[in-house]
Amino acid sequence: MCHAILLVSCPDQKGITAAVTNFIYEHNGNIVHADQHIDEQSNTFFMRIEWSLEGFKIKKKDIGGQFQAIAGQFQMTWELSFSDQCTRVAIFVSRHLHCLLDLIYRQRAGQLVCEIPLIISNHPDAKTVADDFGIRFLEMPITKTNKREQEEKEIKALNEENVGLIVLARYHQIFTEDFVSKFRNRIINIHHSFLPAFAGTNPYLQAYEKGVKIIGATSHYVTEKLDEGPIIGQDTVRISHRDALEDLVRKGEDLEKVVLSRAVRLALQKKILSYSNKTVIFD
Amino acid sequence: MCHAILLVSCPDQKGITAAVTNFIYEHNGNIVHADQHIDEQSNTFFMRIEWSLEGFKIKKKDIGGQFQAIAGQFQMTWELSFSDQCTRVAIFVSRHLHCLLDLIYRQRAGQLVCEIPLIISNHPDAKTVADDFGIRFLEMPITKTNKREQEEKEIKALNEENVGLIVLARYHQIFTEDFVSKFRNRIINIHHSFLPAFAGTNPYLQAYEKGVKIIGATSHYVTEKLDEGPIIGQDTVRISHRDALEDLVRKGEDLEKVVLSRAVRLALQKKILSYSNKTVIFD
Amino acid sequence: MCHAILLVSCPDQKGITAAVTNFIYEHNGNIVHADQHIDEQSNTFFMRIEWSLEGFKIKKKDIGGQFQAIAGQFQMTWELSFSDQCTRVAIFVSRHLHCLLDLIYRQRAGQLVCEIPLIISNHPDAKTVADDFGIRFLEMPITKTNKREQEEKEIKALNEENVGLIVLARYHQIFTEDFVSKFRNRIINIHHSFLPAFAGTNPYLQAYEKGVKIIGATSHYVTEKLDEGPIIGQDTVRISHRDALEDLVRKGEDLEKVVLSRAVRLALQKKILSYSNKTVIFD
Amino acid sequence: MCHAILLVSCPDQKGITAAVTNFIYEHNGNIVHADQHIDEQSNTFFMRIEWSLEGFKIKKKDIGGQFQAIAGQFQMTWELSFSDQCTRVAIFVSRHLHCLLDLIYRQRAGQLVCEIPLIISNHPDAKTVADDFGIRFLEMPITKTNKREQEEKEIKALNEENVGLIVLARYHQIFTEDFVSKFRNRIINIHHSFLPAFAGTNPYLQAYEKGVKIIGATSHYVTEKLDEGPIIGQDTVRISHRDALEDLVRKGEDLEKVVLSRAVRLALQKKILSYSNKTVIFD
Repeated sequence: MCHAILLVSCPDQKGITAAVTNFIYEHNGNIVHADQHIDEQSNTFFMRIEWSLEGFKIKKKDIGGQFQAIAGQFQMTWELSFSDQCTRVAIFVSRHLHCLLDLIYRQRAGQLVCEIPLIISNHPDAKTVADDFGIRFLEMPITKTNKREQEEKEIKALNEENVGLIVLARYHQIFTEDFVSKFRNRIINIHHSFLPAFAGTNPYLQAYEKGVKIIGATSHYVTEKLDEGPIIGQDTVRISHRDALEDLVRKGEDLEKVVLSRAVRLALQKKILSYSNKTVIFD
Repeated sequence: MCHAILLVSCPDQKGITAAVTNFIYEHNGNIVHADQHIDEQSNTFFMRIEWSLEGFKIKKKDIGGQFQAIAGQFQMTWELSFSDQCTRVAIFVSRHLHCLLDLIYRQRAGQLVCEIPLIISNHPDAKTVADDFGIRFLEMPITKTNKREQEEKEIKALNEENVGLIVLARYHQIFTEDFVSKFRNRIINIHHSFLPAFAGTNPYLQAYEKGVKIIGATSHYVTEKLDEGPIIGQDTVRISHRDALEDLVRKGEDLEKVVLSRAVRLALQKKILSYSNKTVIFD
Repeated sequence: MCHAILLVSCPDQKGITAAVTNFIYEHNGNIVHADQHIDEQSNTFFMRIEWSLEGFKIKKKDIGGQFQAIAGQFQMTWELSFSDQCTRVAIFVSRHLHCLLDLIYRQRAGQLVCEIPLIISNHPDAKTVADDFGIRFLEMPITKTNKREQEEKEIKALNEENVGLIVLARYHQIFTEDFVSKFRNRIINIHHSFLPAFAGTNPYLQAYEKGVKIIGATSHYVTEKLDEGPIIGQDTVRISHRDALEDLVRKGEDLEKVVLSRAVRLALQKKILSYSNKTVIFD
Repeated sequence: MCHAILLVSCPDQKGITAAVTNFIYEHNGNIVHADQHIDEQSNTFFMRIEWSLEGFKIKKKDIGGQFQAIAGQFQMTWELSFSDQCTRVAIFVSRHLHCLLDLIYRQRAGQLVCEIPLIISNHPDAKTVADDFGIRFLEMPITKTNKREQEEKEIKALNEENVGLIVLARYHQIFTEDFVSKFRNRIINIHHSFLPAFAGTNPYLQAYEKGVKIIGATSHYVTEKLDEGPIIGQDTVRISHRDALEDLVRKGEDLEKVVLSRAVRLALQKKILSYSNKTVIFD
């Protein structure tokens, strides 16, 4: 049965939860998941609520309109989605294909409920993978002068394919601010370090030279500032002096796959709320 | 400001959250934490809700009575508590004192908001600690024949001290079923293994002989079945062939302290709901 | 340049390391890795030593013969191998193909230096994978009565393919003792739990019903006793009451892939010594 | 029985291990632990070797002199120590006393084989602890102008007490380069973050504001560059949006104690070799 999912943030005050849950109850909805959080520093209220539409008395297309009354009363920022919507995901990748393959595998296995209609790369390496799985592939090499032009073509393709989520699966190019601003909170990147340590290029080499005893991977939303967007998830693995640089890469790639796919799954399930460069994760 | 905390479980149906949050809102309460969970197998609804009593229109002593109407309607099992109640904790210990010391240290540091009026042991070793911190100490040696008799004295002391939570901080005696039944969901034990592996005596030796590569610690509520009560928390640490039995003990004790103190903290904050030999942890 | 690798175990006494390292030095070998361990309980000495054959004065085929003098003197159990030997690996699998795919992917990516000439399954599901990668596939359904007969065919195929290591990548059949005894310390299994907890069938369901807060995966050598062979590696991941059984499976499968592939890699690099149902891991 | 422990580093070449182990064997020593590592980038050989002096034919006081012949031949940097030497440790601390208490507790419990004759602080808070355990306490307040002068007094006290290892257990002052250079590889610090992330002051606040999902702690040798010395050990713990700053502090302090005490233990057991701003850990 289809579920409705509501993500809400607003200034905290009395009565928000009662108003939202009453709205659902009065129209005969059955809540299957509800979680809320209050950020005390900024006095902000966050909520994720999911209810079954079986017997719900408002038609799907009218729920948003009717909810607007409550939203207005509490100055809510909100997003309504439905569990039977299948988000369309575009994957950007450069030459390391392990995350790309992992995402496709998980999508095929039903772990990621989405469609993957488009792969974009600044290199030709991923074309074979795209072909194998029948996914449209755009090779978009980036030079010092053509980035803006290429991005326009990319945006055109993303719109054609009706893409709702962009995943950078080890894509080693920086978007322009224009591009990023068009897809706010809709671009997820995997950075192969424990951010904020080792931002920028070649984090495994940086970690190796620093002699750290643990390496990490970080998934985050992309903002205008490189490697500084709101962090969605992180994980770490222990290394030792016996690990050569190639061992860091090997161990790190296992982390990357897990950390990136978790973040994509959370985004598809509408379990992430981003605020003031942090995230609330309703898991 | 004092908060009220309500723990609820009941058969799932429409309107529970709306009813509870309306009750709070109508009497001018401000929810500061709310989390719920539905166990789909048993169709059971679980909720923890915490609200500020600043401006709340029902007096503390009357809240339970007035809530009873809602509780009855939904066949709720429920528990109401207040953040300004300071639970009185008794600690049982045998000869390993690291968990006892750790709990006292954390209580003194304000990490565990509780009082510790009573330490009970089947050995004399903890007396010095009790004396140092001005805590009443009962030495209750257990023989094959005196357990029931000693437990009666223990129950008397627990009642005298108005104890609300019993913590077994490496207490190596088994209570009678009578004793356990008197303190259902009010006795927390630390078992020094990753349960259900290595239940029973000497789990570090068992782990050493088995050659596992990771050891663990488990906090759980005590039930009639030894080491089988609902698990509250677990944690693990990596070991290798280089670790002798004494290294397992050393590394394990660090885990024990963290795992036990986390469980006690959760219990004091009323963040644990136990059902059908499992727990819901509202953290 | 080719390296020689020597794995040694023997009763501990003075002079073992000196004898072995002298043997290498006198014949102009350069040690690139050496590690040793002494099990104090059994007074057993374990060593892994690896040296470059560049300039080594004994021919590869003669090293073993000449080392025999030292080995005899110290009653060593020993195994000599060479880094340019490419172990041939057979993978047994039932219906869950994630570990199989992961092993093939890592072998193709150069993380596992081996050949994979043979996949054997009691189900037809893996045939497509085998075909895709050009690997010989044997479907060997097991009934109550044909196990011994099928194993004979399997042994024939394993011998034909000159298989040096058997990997059970979620193969849900139990071998006869005869089969196991033919491949002692040469069959690696992944068990999808934190052994010794949840041995046997359906460990995720067992873990779910027990309500544990952490699940695990265990790689081990297969012996006559089900799920009781020497443990090679383990890893764990945190779960909560929010995780349904299918979430345990999903999170567990990520562990299985990492834990199994690490064990296979260690075996291929001759970094595992098994003794008295434990392992020494030279990593 | 007393053991000798030799830590060696030198340019890699053939015959080092043979020379060292022969030296031990010829004089009737029994090796109980040996581990070596070769850093391929710098072609440097590292070794830790420990042997029993039972029946060893060179007197303790003469071992170093006799070993010098081998050391010279291979241009070794080396350090010889004995398991019956009890290192004298001075602890510097500011106002957070949890690490100090933890170290004393572990020393009393026999986990850290050392003496602790001296506690130095820029605040008076630790005096009670020092008094309780009968340890000399120096209160050395640091102002903008008196640092050099105070350090001279500290050095005098460290020399009086014959201190071999300095542990900064949350000591929030920066030493002069002169001070540091006098105790190279003999000052261990705990930094309450996952370095190199959040170096400098108030790392928990930095982590909180950044919104990371994992926090860490790092033990390292102190060098002239703040928080940049060779890392000895690190560990991490998961946090979420529900964790307030005080929760980060609470969870982090548990990490600090474990990570610092592990590093001190490794140092006391002569299991750390420092080179080019990294460490080799022989554990």
